[in-house]
Amino acid sequence: MKDMARTVRDYIRTIPDFPEPGIMFRDVTTLFSDPRGFRIAIDQLLHPYAGMEIDKVVGLEARGFILGGAVAHQLSTGFVPIRKKGKLPGQTIEQPYQLEYGEAVMELHDDALEPGETVLLVDDLLATGGTAEAGIKLIERLGAQCIGCAFVIDLPDLGGRAKLEALGQQVHALCAFEGD
Amino acid sequence: MKDMARTVRDYIRTIPDFPEPGIMFRDVTTLFSDPRGFRIAIDQLLHPYAGMEIDKVVGLEARGFILGGAVAHQLSTGFVPIRKKGKLPGQTIEQPYQLEYGEAVMELHDDALEPGETVLLVDDLLATGGTAEAGIKLIERLGAQCIGCAFVIDLPDLGGRAKLEALGQQVHALCAFEGD
Repeated sequence: MKDMARTVRDYIRTIPDFPEPGIMFRDVTTLFSDPRGFRIAIDQLLHPYAGMEIDKVVGLEARGFILGGAVAHQLSTGFVPIRKKGKLPGQTIEQPYQLEYGEAVMELHDDALEPGETVLLVDDLLATGGTAEAGIKLIERLGAQCIGCAFVIDLPDLGGRAKLEALGQQVHALCAFEGD
Repeated sequence: MKDMARTVRDYIRTIPDFPEPGIMFRDVTTLFSDPRGFRIAIDQLLHPYAGMEIDKVVGLEARGFILGGAVAHQLSTGFVPIRKKGKLPGQTIEQPYQLEYGEAVMELHDDALEPGETVLLVDDLLATGGTAEAGIKLIERLGAQCIGCAFVIDLPDLGGRAKLEALGQQVHALCAFEGD
């Protein structure tokens, strides 16, 4: 395939049976490691938000940090991490979310966003939407406004888009993999 | 302080007793969340490498992902993650390193770098240099060349710079905190 004809989806590698048997893992490292792939991914992530005022980019641990760092740099905004419990050193607010078995907790520094700030949430993958939902709630609890949720990959069979749209969110994804 | 007079170091917050009593944790989230702070950090990280050919930016999990994403975007290169064991989905090579008590393992996809490629390694903090040393070894085991190691913070009392320089590396840090 000619390089200029490759889409974001073409750069993504599928690893069968990771992290457990039966899972088709969509690996974005092959997208990020390609200079053209990484650049078109960042460009396309930002495309719907051209001309909008974005105060902060929030990324979800850990692959969302790679995208979020690049997106914040492109926009000349600050970057704010949302992390798994226990990783952020300052005072935090916590938000639990459902895992397949049990529950986990995401955290945000309680002074990381100002009331009224506009935020773009970025992550590599939208699956069930559990971590993104927790992220949106954390952003809104600080009085900031999540004006968009941008993902490289949507797995529509897992219902994440519907879950976030039910929260009033605008969801943007660069490609989808069905049958996951 | 006038904003234009603030240095990278001025944006870094110190959190006492994290993650355990007696540790003064240098928190870069206040640097990254400030639009000007984040941009001058990326600019200054790259300053020594102007005009050099860099094929890939490698970032160490997890704060190195934020910097690495931005640096790779600025350079229009690809980004390659080095992660804690068990997180990368493809075939990896492993490198153990010493912790205060015991040992941990960092991993790199075995096809993430080509022999002869030039690599810039980035992370937020240089302390004992254990994870950076593991990263350099992983890069070199794939036949690539680490042409620089760039950090926001150096903790010189912990000896990381000497450890990396003994490996023949060029170390670049934007600021130092003594007495750690």
